[in-house]
Amino acid sequence: MIFPHTTLTLSGERFIVHYRLLAADATGARAIARGISLEQTVEVSAELLAEDDIRAQLVGRVESLAEVDARHFDVAISYAIETTAFELTQLLNVVFGNTAMQPGIRVLRLELSEGLLQHFQGPRFGQKGLRKRLGIARRPLLCTALKPMGLSAPDFADIAYRIALGGIDIIKEDHGITNQPFAPFEERVGRCAEAIDRANRESGQQCLYVANITAPADQIRRRAEMAKKLGAGGLMIAPGLVGWDTMRMLAEDEALALPIFAHPAWLGTFVLSPEQGLTHHVIFGQLPRLAGADATIFVSFGGRFSFSPEACAGIVQAATEPNPALAPSFPIPAGGMTLERLPELYRFYGRDVIFLIAGGLYALGPDLTANARRLREAVESLA
Amino acid sequence: MIFPHTTLTLSGERFIVHYRLLAADATGARAIARGISLEQTVEVSAELLAEDDIRAQLVGRVESLAEVDARHFDVAISYAIETTAFELTQLLNVVFGNTAMQPGIRVLRLELSEGLLQHFQGPRFGQKGLRKRLGIARRPLLCTALKPMGLSAPDFADIAYRIALGGIDIIKEDHGITNQPFAPFEERVGRCAEAIDRANRESGQQCLYVANITAPADQIRRRAEMAKKLGAGGLMIAPGLVGWDTMRMLAEDEALALPIFAHPAWLGTFVLSPEQGLTHHVIFGQLPRLAGADATIFVSFGGRFSFSPEACAGIVQAATEPNPALAPSFPIPAGGMTLERLPELYRFYGRDVIFLIAGGLYALGPDLTANARRLREAVESLA
Repeated sequence: MIFPHTTLTLSGERFIVHYRLLAADATGARAIARGISLEQTVEVSAELLAEDDIRAQLVGRVESLAEVDARHFDVAISYAIETTAFELTQLLNVVFGNTAMQPGIRVLRLELSEGLLQHFQGPRFGQKGLRKRLGIARRPLLCTALKPMGLSAPDFADIAYRIALGGIDIIKEDHGITNQPFAPFEERVGRCAEAIDRANRESGQQCLYVANITAPADQIRRRAEMAKKLGAGGLMIAPGLVGWDTMRMLAEDEALALPIFAHPAWLGTFVLSPEQGLTHHVIFGQLPRLAGADATIFVSFGGRFSFSPEACAGIVQAATEPNPALAPSFPIPAGGMTLERLPELYRFYGRDVIFLIAGGLYALGPDLTANARRLREAVESLA
Repeated sequence: MIFPHTTLTLSGERFIVHYRLLAADATGARAIARGISLEQTVEVSAELLAEDDIRAQLVGRVESLAEVDARHFDVAISYAIETTAFELTQLLNVVFGNTAMQPGIRVLRLELSEGLLQHFQGPRFGQKGLRKRLGIARRPLLCTALKPMGLSAPDFADIAYRIALGGIDIIKEDHGITNQPFAPFEERVGRCAEAIDRANRESGQQCLYVANITAPADQIRRRAEMAKKLGAGGLMIAPGLVGWDTMRMLAEDEALALPIFAHPAWLGTFVLSPEQGLTHHVIFGQLPRLAGADATIFVSFGGRFSFSPEACAGIVQAATEPNPALAPSFPIPAGGMTLERLPELYRFYGRDVIFLIAGGLYALGPDLTANARRLREAVESLA
């Protein structure tokens, strides 16, 4: 023992992280789990600790260990909620900070306790609030994206106008359209908001314009404010690019109070390997919802990406399962969706979903208003 | 063709991303590369584009393709620097935003051009500035960490005092010590800074105290300021937890102007799979340096983590190779370093390195000043 004997005043409340371990046998798995419980908290070997509250309470506790198959074991490790300092950054760190550098360990699921969740607001609007804002009670929502990078602000606005007129519910920008010289943020957002507003007045509908505010740390708050001022009805943020807590901060900002759309850019690596990283459930479901995303975009099975139906179901579950502390987020399957696939997607995702069809809208032909109308009619015929 | 014909005014300058692809043959690899060049820029299939500057200039360009072995191909794709909007967030997005969700694609290396680099300050101090600040001209530097989470602020200060007295050059905090109730940030940093300052006055040495400011987005700037005001001589940030651009923002902040230490927490998953994610070279070398880290912590080969000597050499190369636009960062191998291994580590890393020995210092026995002195003498005997 090297460190001083310490007495702590703790709530006794703990949260649980479920990990899947690659191990030779149960004994090996137990040793790995014990290593995680130290690495993620005190970062020293147990023999340096006194027989005190740090050892007994702060070090993670292996609550259960179950064999999945000959090489895989599921363990549940609990941590005192005070280890997180009630900060999202430090919560992520306790869950997987250093352990992310150890091969063969995957975070399956977070089981967050009430005393921890009360420090997070979660989605401000959630499914209910977003439906109310759009005036759509039951059917799936329809979203498309402005593209491609390189167009001028007037061209984006023209496309936005034509699509909005056709009855798309939500128009977001591609996440790669930020503040390039071809279409500077302020001009682009102003013109697109105006164009969509004009289409709404003409059509009597209420298409929501979601501006991409993914931006440098010293500019993102300003872009969010400006987007709101210019008439955007929602904000898209890629938490992988700006940090999870930056999204949480903006979602909880009372002066903004706009629906938040989480984009999956830069997050793919976390989920791709079945034996490392974190599950789709955590990365595209639990974390966006905890960090205040009203809707979470991910790449659906059957598109041009590789997520499996099981992975997508895990995302939907995490985004929507009942939680007294967090409103449900809308799942937004994307990445190669088409008109033809809508019935199949509806059977899988049900009605509480936002279908993001972008390339699949443009590919229908040069009359974007007609394309949008076809998609809208197809969605309306589903539910 | 769906989108309007667009004429662009571009510099013509391009930067290059080197990817390794898993593919059945060269034809397959070329198709994947072409897919990346679209996905990372315009996000639409080529046939929707006009024969214009967007297609010719903005879409990524496959510059070369080389077979590595029967299943792997290296491709170089160039992008117009304007696609990045000269923002670090969008640069990361062009490099690997959506493509991170495609299996079998790994970012090997970034080749950033002058016109892009001029938008980044890079390390403010770098190796030269940090050496000057510490008054150490040639030998490797010696760093340790305050631990474990759970100690009170006075206990951390006492440990810091005893270690500083023994001649450690840099004392950082564990990255999991943030603002827990046991040792609130302000009290802890104030007491530790005072204790190390007192030790410096007694010993005549100049141990640098590096406070961990990894924190929620709405608090990190304030913690950095407070740390400086309280006497910290450096700031540790985990860019994986707070976002790369948050670190850049703080590194470039003239009012702070403190050395930045990058911590690898949450970043492990990016590098673990040889066929996905990004290399150690990029994640622990190129990105920290670009984002202004004066020193980059990573887990060395031969410790309790799994990085190979080749991976570590790649990090060192990226952190230190000559670059007219970016000062060299100090590599900080860590994660299970010991007194006994110093000669071996020195042979590998040379003198321009910071050895981070934390558990290995505490494990030497209860007299922390004596432990620190032994490590200091061992490092002095190396060079």
